[in-house]
Amino acid sequence: MDNTVQPVDAETIGSEWVRLGHDDPLPLDSGEELSPFTVAYRTYGNLNEARDNAILLCHALTGDQFAADPSPVTGKAGWWQMLIGPGRPLDTDRFFIICPNVLGGCMGSSGPAEVNPETGRPWALTFPVITIGDMVRAQARLLDHLGIDQLFAVVGGSMGGMQALQWASDYPERVFASVPIAAAARHSAQNIAFHEVGRQAIMADPDWCGGNYIMQGTKPRRGLAVARMAAHITYLSEAALHRKFGRNLQNRSEFTYGFDADFQVESYLRHQGSSFVDRFDANAYLYITRAMDYFDLAQDHGGVLARAFADTPVRFCVISFSSDWLFPTAESRRLVHALNAAAANVSFVEVETDKGHDAFLLDEPEFHDTLVGFLEGAAEHRWGGGAS
Amino acid sequence: MDNTVQPVDAETIGSEWVRLGHDDPLPLDSGEELSPFTVAYRTYGNLNEARDNAILLCHALTGDQFAADPSPVTGKAGWWQMLIGPGRPLDTDRFFIICPNVLGGCMGSSGPAEVNPETGRPWALTFPVITIGDMVRAQARLLDHLGIDQLFAVVGGSMGGMQALQWASDYPERVFASVPIAAAARHSAQNIAFHEVGRQAIMADPDWCGGNYIMQGTKPRRGLAVARMAAHITYLSEAALHRKFGRNLQNRSEFTYGFDADFQVESYLRHQGSSFVDRFDANAYLYITRAMDYFDLAQDHGGVLARAFADTPVRFCVISFSSDWLFPTAESRRLVHALNAAAANVSFVEVETDKGHDAFLLDEPEFHDTLVGFLEGAAEHRWGGGAS
Repeated sequence: MDNTVQPVDAETIGSEWVRLGHDDPLPLDSGEELSPFTVAYRTYGNLNEARDNAILLCHALTGDQFAADPSPVTGKAGWWQMLIGPGRPLDTDRFFIICPNVLGGCMGSSGPAEVNPETGRPWALTFPVITIGDMVRAQARLLDHLGIDQLFAVVGGSMGGMQALQWASDYPERVFASVPIAAAARHSAQNIAFHEVGRQAIMADPDWCGGNYIMQGTKPRRGLAVARMAAHITYLSEAALHRKFGRNLQNRSEFTYGFDADFQVESYLRHQGSSFVDRFDANAYLYITRAMDYFDLAQDHGGVLARAFADTPVRFCVISFSSDWLFPTAESRRLVHALNAAAANVSFVEVETDKGHDAFLLDEPEFHDTLVGFLEGAAEHRWGGGAS
Repeated sequence: MDNTVQPVDAETIGSEWVRLGHDDPLPLDSGEELSPFTVAYRTYGNLNEARDNAILLCHALTGDQFAADPSPVTGKAGWWQMLIGPGRPLDTDRFFIICPNVLGGCMGSSGPAEVNPETGRPWALTFPVITIGDMVRAQARLLDHLGIDQLFAVVGGSMGGMQALQWASDYPERVFASVPIAAAARHSAQNIAFHEVGRQAIMADPDWCGGNYIMQGTKPRRGLAVARMAAHITYLSEAALHRKFGRNLQNRSEFTYGFDADFQVESYLRHQGSSFVDRFDANAYLYITRAMDYFDLAQDHGGVLARAFADTPVRFCVISFSSDWLFPTAESRRLVHALNAAAANVSFVEVETDKGHDAFLLDEPEFHDTLVGFLEGAAEHRWGGGAS
């Protein structure tokens, strides 16, 4: 447990990375621009000769580019390890999977934890506030760099699903298929509220130092842990918490009549909080939650969501989970209605599960079958009978 | 905004109060005892000659005894002002309403913010951890003091409903009717989890000073505000948040691309947090949330909830709200099944509303009608055709 943090460096992290935008600044929705900027990423499988078998995989709020290999920070398996590989739903014998760390992140892509090349000091709060649109714009530059004109698919869960939608809306000609999972076309008032609680917890920690904790050689451990604990509850369902923990006590048979973690669920949450702090940057948490809050695809289209997808050639597969109360099925249904109104080609599956929002990261056979089925169908349409 | 706190004193607060247990200590579930202890309370209406028209009104987590008159701290109307008074559901022409501040509270009853008479210093964390059962035991002593053998009814929402159930279970002969509203017979894993987030936020604040902030002349403002913000989200429904705030911006037409309260819902939450800090004690928040976490009526009855009400003579009215996800209708239904299994006399109403858990504090005509109807029916059974 290290109480200080170092600025992020893609090379040190051990990720592929590329520095872009030296001569061609990345315009941001805020009106600012980044030049240069770094995108750290991982790839799995091989790009075919036609350069048309790429799947862009977009990670969620606290995810990163290490989707199918161990995290260099925690040593734990990649967050979609079970879905990526030969013969798996994202079949690396067939597809070239690209998973970039988002702009604003803390695993090597430009963000508040990175050193600002102009000053030689961590960006911290001088990093411009970014949006989901900015993240996608940076990813498009990465694809340019990799020489990929059109993705076979863009796939992502939660915030990754927001990116999948933004891709389809902003670059319809560059995306054959889009798979937003456990996502929504806008962030709800309740979700903004939960994010704000997390941000306030971080900013309330004196070790946050007005955002300059890296320079001060410290880290807002307690605030970031509280933020994670609050968020983590929203990733599960009440039923899952009841099934996993109920009112079971932690290594004791009676109440202690104190404020220790008497209940298993308390102990579990505390662990979620403290382990998160060891792998994530507090300012990055502020920036990425803000990007999600700002997300509302309809807003740039006169408030009419269908217009975000007018005449879209993209094929969509919208997937929700029945017990997800953070991105409830109602939001996916709203999206599907808009896609239907735009005459888009759309499949919609609500997977029955009690695992809540986190189901998109868990072993959910119906979800995995849905993904395989859709990708196979899309491949058929893309290339006919033969694989790429 | 006062950044320091004084120990609590019922007299200064301007509440009726009584100091009990000088010769007869109050036994606590922890095995400890309190002697003496203070109960601060308010009454509305008059006790009749038969001393049988009393309704004990139990407040929720952050409520207090000022149910029907302005809070001496905030100057705001009582939390059930609209329900208490001549001709109102809790009719003061007919009933004698007693509303005590709970043991562990911070409005005059003994709790961590009170001065320990033995040491002359605030109890802080030396105050024993209490339970809902302890709160009710202290209230029973208050009734002894007031010369009331049997309550006509015990009524409460949320934690107040827990007390209404505990009363019926522990003192069935002293309660004619019990009205648990938006409550449950046990605290769920998800609810324990949210409470733990709040406690961790408070204890993470350096101004908490290991619980000794009163002696240090400070106050864990930031931690307590974050705790309140997180809790406040759980009191509302997603639909209510969407209806009230949606994605509306606060006094601006465009995003600021910063971490100010761009959205109305953020501004609202921040206000909820900071105004709460001015009226509530952080340690009391720890103690009372802990009491709720420990609540599980079945636990003392071999895990069988029905046994908590075996052969009960009490008439019950169980009320839930359709959009309450903190104390969902499923928990009320579970309670009703147990009461049915105990052959109890029970009415059950789920009120349709989008206002979430807080509906029990709001203008909900169907809820108010239900309360009036039940109390009238119970009065008929208690006293026949005539009122008391």
